[in-house]
Amino acid sequence: MVVPRLIERKRSGQALRDDEWRELVAGYTAGTVPDYQMSALLMAVMFKGLTHQELAALTGAMLDSGARFTRTAGGAPRVDKHSTGGVGDKTSLILAPLLAACGVAVPMMSGRGLGHTGGTLDKLEAIPGFTTQLSLEAAARQLDDIGVVMLGQTEEIVPADRKLYALRDVTGTVESIPLITASIMSKKLAEALDGLVLDVKVGSGAFIPEPARARELARTMVAVGERAGCRTVALLTAMDRPLGRTAGNALEVREAVEALKGEGRADLLEVTLALGVAMLRLARPAVTAAEAMSTLRDTIASGAALERMAVLVERQGGDPRVLSRPELLPVAPVRRELTAAEQFTMPPLSPRAVGELIVELGGGRRIASDTVNPAVGIEFPVMAGAPVDGDAQWAVIHAQNEAAADHAGRVLRELLDEASRSGGDILPLVMETISAGDLEPPEGA
Amino acid sequence: MVVPRLIERKRSGQALRDDEWRELVAGYTAGTVPDYQMSALLMAVMFKGLTHQELAALTGAMLDSGARFTRTAGGAPRVDKHSTGGVGDKTSLILAPLLAACGVAVPMMSGRGLGHTGGTLDKLEAIPGFTTQLSLEAAARQLDDIGVVMLGQTEEIVPADRKLYALRDVTGTVESIPLITASIMSKKLAEALDGLVLDVKVGSGAFIPEPARARELARTMVAVGERAGCRTVALLTAMDRPLGRTAGNALEVREAVEALKGEGRADLLEVTLALGVAMLRLARPAVTAAEAMSTLRDTIASGAALERMAVLVERQGGDPRVLSRPELLPVAPVRRELTAAEQFTMPPLSPRAVGELIVELGGGRRIASDTVNPAVGIEFPVMAGAPVDGDAQWAVIHAQNEAAADHAGRVLRELLDEASRSGGDILPLVMETISAGDLEPPEGA
Repeated sequence: MVVPRLIERKRSGQALRDDEWRELVAGYTAGTVPDYQMSALLMAVMFKGLTHQELAALTGAMLDSGARFTRTAGGAPRVDKHSTGGVGDKTSLILAPLLAACGVAVPMMSGRGLGHTGGTLDKLEAIPGFTTQLSLEAAARQLDDIGVVMLGQTEEIVPADRKLYALRDVTGTVESIPLITASIMSKKLAEALDGLVLDVKVGSGAFIPEPARARELARTMVAVGERAGCRTVALLTAMDRPLGRTAGNALEVREAVEALKGEGRADLLEVTLALGVAMLRLARPAVTAAEAMSTLRDTIASGAALERMAVLVERQGGDPRVLSRPELLPVAPVRRELTAAEQFTMPPLSPRAVGELIVELGGGRRIASDTVNPAVGIEFPVMAGAPVDGDAQWAVIHAQNEAAADHAGRVLRELLDEASRSGGDILPLVMETISAGDLEPPEGA
Repeated sequence: MVVPRLIERKRSGQALRDDEWRELVAGYTAGTVPDYQMSALLMAVMFKGLTHQELAALTGAMLDSGARFTRTAGGAPRVDKHSTGGVGDKTSLILAPLLAACGVAVPMMSGRGLGHTGGTLDKLEAIPGFTTQLSLEAAARQLDDIGVVMLGQTEEIVPADRKLYALRDVTGTVESIPLITASIMSKKLAEALDGLVLDVKVGSGAFIPEPARARELARTMVAVGERAGCRTVALLTAMDRPLGRTAGNALEVREAVEALKGEGRADLLEVTLALGVAMLRLARPAVTAAEAMSTLRDTIASGAALERMAVLVERQGGDPRVLSRPELLPVAPVRRELTAAEQFTMPPLSPRAVGELIVELGGGRRIASDTVNPAVGIEFPVMAGAPVDGDAQWAVIHAQNEAAADHAGRVLRELLDEASRSGGDILPLVMETISAGDLEPPEGA
């Protein structure tokens, strides 16, 4: 392997062979392929893309750089879901215990919030005592025992991705569909899944806002998953406004718990149940969508989903009393209600701006090493598209101090003005489902 | 300056500002911009190019990374020529003393051979005792004293280029017209020239074989030179066969000396004098092409050019007796003549293949640290397109041993067969001249 020749070939649009990708990734992980060659190659990939064959090889090579969840024969079907990241998206907190209560094993490795998007780990850690730092061994044991585990990426899993991601972050090579795909899918495939549901966000707050490119990402991820023997379905869902009633870590835990109790608001439930139906049908292919929906609703109504959440919280060191007494979650010192004098229709507020405001309030991260204040955040009592009565609350700010609440109030009023002026339609919450059948036949078929 | 944002802007086709290029190059030279960011940026430049403004800024920033030749007011006009590299190209060895003998100051910084192309420094060092490692100070003094100096790039000159070139070499980012231009022009501008003639080779043995891209390189280099206040002219010349009668370091010195004595073969003279006319006219803008040609021919005929060569050789520690006694140059132990039974027309032999054969004979470099055997090489007694009589020599191999000569004979016979079969026309030796008047008006004009 002469790395400069491989870079030149990729640069001129040729595909590299499977063994070349394996050697490149293994060499990079081991340190024999230096950063400066890998970053040049990644930039060439940004311009020339990867074939499905190359992408499968790259993903496989990354997967092989570390350990995976063990998988014993038989046992419950194993399904996970992954989102490309949004604001107010607490679906994972609902889906993991809900699907586990339906008999599906859910080994959910998640990330932290960065920039305007939130992260499942930060939300979970708003629960006093909850730990997300589990060894792969402990996680596998918990999965066997209670059917669900929610953890951060361990050191052992896909070290190549950690190294590559850090390099991409400083070399302008983040926004590449094949590189994003390889990063996500190598980690998800390390969970040794039967099925994977991808929630690909679309709209101004999404990592990839344009529907066409988001669809391309979805199709690419589905192709890679299927090729690796993991049944994969992608849903395109709306991120043109925050999802659900709350944004901010402890607030979102409260909202997720409400949903597990059957009190979820329609917008949150619509997305959550669409993802849940897809997950359940991957676990049990014979089940219809309507049957899956009934099962999920029944599992919530019976209290089984909430109960599984309690078991999960307790097992990972958290205080399960928060499920019945949400006031035990961190509470911000200042609560500020925003009202308007006259009735208006709630417009879709920019999720990016809302997410950035939460970072300003201390509830998110500008850089990975920032610490997060779990208590702060914003509630939006009225769904986008619904009327807000005169003098009714349209936002509630949870801030660390008065000055921060003042600032947040100003920003939110500006956002409301801006959004009201620009008028635009709101996106349907669940826009499209992409599964193996929607893909073009593979190359050479 | 946030480097990843600059990389992203370049990647998306935006131009960086002058101050951004200055900071990038200064940071890279100082080590604060790491290799992995620079290589990603260079790859983005490969795809998105540079505007003339950017290229001027990059070239200027590279130039500013080191020292330059001093230039006192008045004195002889200062002109150099640079070639993009070929096989058998010994024009520099003729032009430097010839132009100096015409009253032009020639501060010629050259490179070494690498891969299939030869290098002026290696040729000069075939002269016993000749040193090309001069300090900038010594070189400037010699230029003042005798009007000509031929040296290697010193440590002090354009350190940014040395670092960037080494990085490009290992990251698949060599073949970029703007990057090639910045590399060449930053070094040439460090000579503080009044004029520069560029010999841009075209044809299978050229660094950029295709005429259209070679023309683009020529125009780009002319634009950068003119923008920096150095009058610049480019000639496109043929590299579809080796230039002149010999390829190999000592053999080429012999041929150059013959040319300085007025015994140069027509093909070598045609290219050399076309470059020389362009150089002389940059030094003395009032002179016509015909007058310049006469001056050059007279300066050879009078012996003044050869005399200046003797002064140059002696001043740089070489043995000037080689000019009258070429047998004092290194001679290879084995001399092998190739003949054919029947008459044929000499086809253009692949310069790349001939150059690689010379590397195999030990007369060139695979990697920069290889040492070179100055004695070995190949003579081609008959010009491409001319008839070779039955039993007449069409090639003479100078090799270190019988086995190497056997191998070279086999390779050359194959090359001859191949070239004879494919037939193709030969390129005109001097194809095109590009000067400032041939450029489009600058952006924004």
